[in-house]
Amino acid sequence: MTTSAAPLTGVIPPVCTPMTPDYEVDVASMVRLVDHLVGGGVDALFVLGSSSEVAYLTDAQRRTVLDTVVGHVAGQVPVLAGVIDMTTPRVLEHARVAIEAGAAGLVATAPFYTRTHPDEIRTHFRTLAARTGLPVYAYDLPVSVHTKLSADLLLELAAEGVLAGVKDSSGDDGGLRAVILGRRPPFSVLTGSEVTVDSALWMGADGVVPGLGNVDPHGYVELYRCAARGDWQAARAEQERLARLFGIVHVGGARMGGSSSGLGAFKAALHLRGVIDCPVTALPQIPLNEDEIGRIGKLLAGAGLL
Amino acid sequence: MTTSAAPLTGVIPPVCTPMTPDYEVDVASMVRLVDHLVGGGVDALFVLGSSSEVAYLTDAQRRTVLDTVVGHVAGQVPVLAGVIDMTTPRVLEHARVAIEAGAAGLVATAPFYTRTHPDEIRTHFRTLAARTGLPVYAYDLPVSVHTKLSADLLLELAAEGVLAGVKDSSGDDGGLRAVILGRRPPFSVLTGSEVTVDSALWMGADGVVPGLGNVDPHGYVELYRCAARGDWQAARAEQERLARLFGIVHVGGARMGGSSSGLGAFKAALHLRGVIDCPVTALPQIPLNEDEIGRIGKLLAGAGLL
Amino acid sequence: MTTSAAPLTGVIPPVCTPMTPDYEVDVASMVRLVDHLVGGGVDALFVLGSSSEVAYLTDAQRRTVLDTVVGHVAGQVPVLAGVIDMTTPRVLEHARVAIEAGAAGLVATAPFYTRTHPDEIRTHFRTLAARTGLPVYAYDLPVSVHTKLSADLLLELAAEGVLAGVKDSSGDDGGLRAVILGRRPPFSVLTGSEVTVDSALWMGADGVVPGLGNVDPHGYVELYRCAARGDWQAARAEQERLARLFGIVHVGGARMGGSSSGLGAFKAALHLRGVIDCPVTALPQIPLNEDEIGRIGKLLAGAGLL
Amino acid sequence: MTTSAAPLTGVIPPVCTPMTPDYEVDVASMVRLVDHLVGGGVDALFVLGSSSEVAYLTDAQRRTVLDTVVGHVAGQVPVLAGVIDMTTPRVLEHARVAIEAGAAGLVATAPFYTRTHPDEIRTHFRTLAARTGLPVYAYDLPVSVHTKLSADLLLELAAEGVLAGVKDSSGDDGGLRAVILGRRPPFSVLTGSEVTVDSALWMGADGVVPGLGNVDPHGYVELYRCAARGDWQAARAEQERLARLFGIVHVGGARMGGSSSGLGAFKAALHLRGVIDCPVTALPQIPLNEDEIGRIGKLLAGAGLL
Repeated sequence: MTTSAAPLTGVIPPVCTPMTPDYEVDVASMVRLVDHLVGGGVDALFVLGSSSEVAYLTDAQRRTVLDTVVGHVAGQVPVLAGVIDMTTPRVLEHARVAIEAGAAGLVATAPFYTRTHPDEIRTHFRTLAARTGLPVYAYDLPVSVHTKLSADLLLELAAEGVLAGVKDSSGDDGGLRAVILGRRPPFSVLTGSEVTVDSALWMGADGVVPGLGNVDPHGYVELYRCAARGDWQAARAEQERLARLFGIVHVGGARMGGSSSGLGAFKAALHLRGVIDCPVTALPQIPLNEDEIGRIGKLLAGAGLL
Repeated sequence: MTTSAAPLTGVIPPVCTPMTPDYEVDVASMVRLVDHLVGGGVDALFVLGSSSEVAYLTDAQRRTVLDTVVGHVAGQVPVLAGVIDMTTPRVLEHARVAIEAGAAGLVATAPFYTRTHPDEIRTHFRTLAARTGLPVYAYDLPVSVHTKLSADLLLELAAEGVLAGVKDSSGDDGGLRAVILGRRPPFSVLTGSEVTVDSALWMGADGVVPGLGNVDPHGYVELYRCAARGDWQAARAEQERLARLFGIVHVGGARMGGSSSGLGAFKAALHLRGVIDCPVTALPQIPLNEDEIGRIGKLLAGAGLL
Repeated sequence: MTTSAAPLTGVIPPVCTPMTPDYEVDVASMVRLVDHLVGGGVDALFVLGSSSEVAYLTDAQRRTVLDTVVGHVAGQVPVLAGVIDMTTPRVLEHARVAIEAGAAGLVATAPFYTRTHPDEIRTHFRTLAARTGLPVYAYDLPVSVHTKLSADLLLELAAEGVLAGVKDSSGDDGGLRAVILGRRPPFSVLTGSEVTVDSALWMGADGVVPGLGNVDPHGYVELYRCAARGDWQAARAEQERLARLFGIVHVGGARMGGSSSGLGAFKAALHLRGVIDCPVTALPQIPLNEDEIGRIGKLLAGAGLL
Repeated sequence: MTTSAAPLTGVIPPVCTPMTPDYEVDVASMVRLVDHLVGGGVDALFVLGSSSEVAYLTDAQRRTVLDTVVGHVAGQVPVLAGVIDMTTPRVLEHARVAIEAGAAGLVATAPFYTRTHPDEIRTHFRTLAARTGLPVYAYDLPVSVHTKLSADLLLELAAEGVLAGVKDSSGDDGGLRAVILGRRPPFSVLTGSEVTVDSALWMGADGVVPGLGNVDPHGYVELYRCAARGDWQAARAEQERLARLFGIVHVGGARMGGSSSGLGAFKAALHLRGVIDCPVTALPQIPLNEDEIGRIGKLLAGAGLL
């Protein structure tokens, strides 16, 4: 259990995984995306998260992503790795690969697919921490894993030194505050909600993991810097601009799943902005059509990004 | 798409995965379990399903299971393989391994972890069928994947020849009946509910995939044979005996998750019956304690199995 | 607590509530519907259930329904009354009215709207039984109240004499069987699932409460009688005809809620069959359109009812 | 549809309903509670909300509450009335009573118990607004009604003049922000989350409806005033004190439902503070025990309230 390092802070985008038209990892685009993000001033990168389409990547593709990003970043910023799988033994396998690739920390959800008791979730995170030696961040994502990590559970594991932080994508800002008020440093509280970053920072969160940060890293960096220097009015104005831009994730509407709509929008925007070569998303996601991509273009233009 | 083979019928237990005390696949016990099942008269085997702890097995362990069971069975009965993972690309990887190992058919759920539209589920199964060339069985398991496969979707994919059958573990016997009444042969309808097999067969289901069949394969074979020859009174009596035995899955109660309680009970019973060497379940499951195992022993005795 | 009476058996339709075009209870149509049902041979009537649009009726309308039906039936068959509301005190108010009107038994769900513990559900039913002196039937309807009544809870309250029976509309036939196997008479187990009546009776259920029984009471009575005399083949054939007819509830499809689609279909069918004057459903339900009603007509004709 | 009045702002506590030991409305305590709140500087009162145990009150008790509070307040502040019931016709009955009693506005949820389509929710609110002539506030409470009111639906009904505002108790601050950014005045956005009031106001919310405001109205009034004059540091400090006090709602823990635990805590605290005579909650709620009430006392003392 290693939580001795400085806590993670700032803007840590979950890096999209650009693909070629035949669904392979597009390494050249991936490198350009990393440059776009690091050049935008982000504080760390998070690969193999939900916004990275981790659920759709084969193990070989996951390794390509890790090697590409860790290799290209070359220590400029820390690279966290998602180790997303159903249970402890499978997560440990991903952790082994991430450690070999040089990840600076691991991000893991509660078990899913199985019906899991809170005591089993505790065992899960304790085992990960004990066996990996890397900082472990809990990824609270009930929309995907159908379990909410309670503030009590997180604080207990934080106090034990099992968890180095939490990425809270639950949308439950009451729970987020309970963790913020109850934790003792170093324990990083990161929000995954793109549209309430100013208020999360206001409450005392340490940083943000915004999927939309792929599209506009400068915006999130500016928002974070405004907050850090106490200029909350400017932070809010920047957040409101980004909240409007976040409308791109709804363009796909009811004719596709939320994953297709959100991840497709990020990739379409990155394509329109010239960062990646191809906006394709992995199977079985439904692609955005021309009209929908056109509406994304308008939202980008409205946010000053085209 | 190959659905030309004779439809699957009868008793097809989802084979438990015995483990050593250090959580490796216990090949010797696995072989004995296979003999116990095949000797009990089952019609096929289903490896790497939920009752096999597939969610907890690493890819290497999954392959060991496949090789062990397909190798040992040596064609006596067909072996279906679960290809349980989050999305199409990851499922295809498991399918590749299963095909290499000699599986006779594939069993796949709807995507999970992601937020998925019915049209994406259609694409998922169509892609699996098109790329694998093996019969594909849909595994309807909303408790794990949080999506119910509707009768309409199943019948549509059956009519296209995409699906060779369904394993219905939804507990929704109204939906099961709609599939039975709407399908055209060959399309296998298999229930995964251990306690309503007589009624499912009565409605016209072709077979059963009972987790409890690990513990008492003779019972399910007897039940199926009674039904097949039209002796429904005897089928019901056998089912009622098995329904009482099914109480073993509740022994773990509220101090653990439902997966731990159910899978732990199957393994404890197999251990008590002398079939496997060790009742251990994979991490992070909570093991049953002595008192709980004692109660399982009593239920086994009550069912005439000890 | 009065569970001394003979247990309820047979066909007990949840009586639809016909309305005038201005959404008042259509007493004349209601009387004709009662005659249609009693003339069809049903064993009892259940007013103010979900199929009666109880959730949409004002207290005055509920009383009109009770007075109309109890008065017109005049003791030919027992009339059970739904006492559907959020918590114990509100349910007790409905019970008082039902007792005054002459109901033979009360049907109550678990509390809803509130977040309720199983021990609170126990208190709820115990209080109802103690204060009303009428037989109390538990209405297991998780789709509406978002709580499943476990077999253990039902059997415990049955053993105490608190519950006289259960109407199981959960769709969980495994749970239904656990109650059937665990109960001691007199305790009535009634299924609310229109399409699995033969199998529920086969398992040992005492009767059925079919919404579709409004449309075709003769069919359900025939099904029950076939089962009662042991002619299961005929029971199944009748059930399969009714299962196909049940397709009327899906005609409304995704453009309306499930309540509108199902209740609208029952009323449209009753209107087409000449039993009630007007197919209107209460606000805010979306009415079926002409095309949809046309398809219901075809399904009726296919079932030999037009 | 009357949304012409000045929009509702500030602190609007959902008033608890004190009861006598035999579960009747304790009018004398209710009057003292109203004085406690109005004396504490709140801007309006909301009676018959979830924190008022509205789900547990008979219609007669609801009317007593309305008459008592509206009568005693005598126009000092507006009194909003919850009209909580399953569907439009039943809600309209409650609205009629509330109007007679002199309520200044109505608070209504989406339909519940029924399975309801968004278009039916639209019809529901449109009908309420058209038939009542009072400002209608949508009560977004998915934990109780199992439907989330989307930002798009709320903004559409706001633009039509159907809704005068929303009380957002969904805990989804991303959705809250979308409503704030998308609305045009006058449309009141009120948060129901006790622990994120400073951040909701920061985002642009107009006020708060805090159950905990029964216990500490001065605290919420102070918090609101700090925010209104731009002293956000002081607002946050006050909010953090209140967030710690909010721990009282968890004291009941897993041995009771969340309603019992939360509502019991508010009443126990009001009793300990000498505002109400008796902390009893309605059936079938489980009462807090002495030890739990002792822990509530300590949390009150820690917040400087004893």
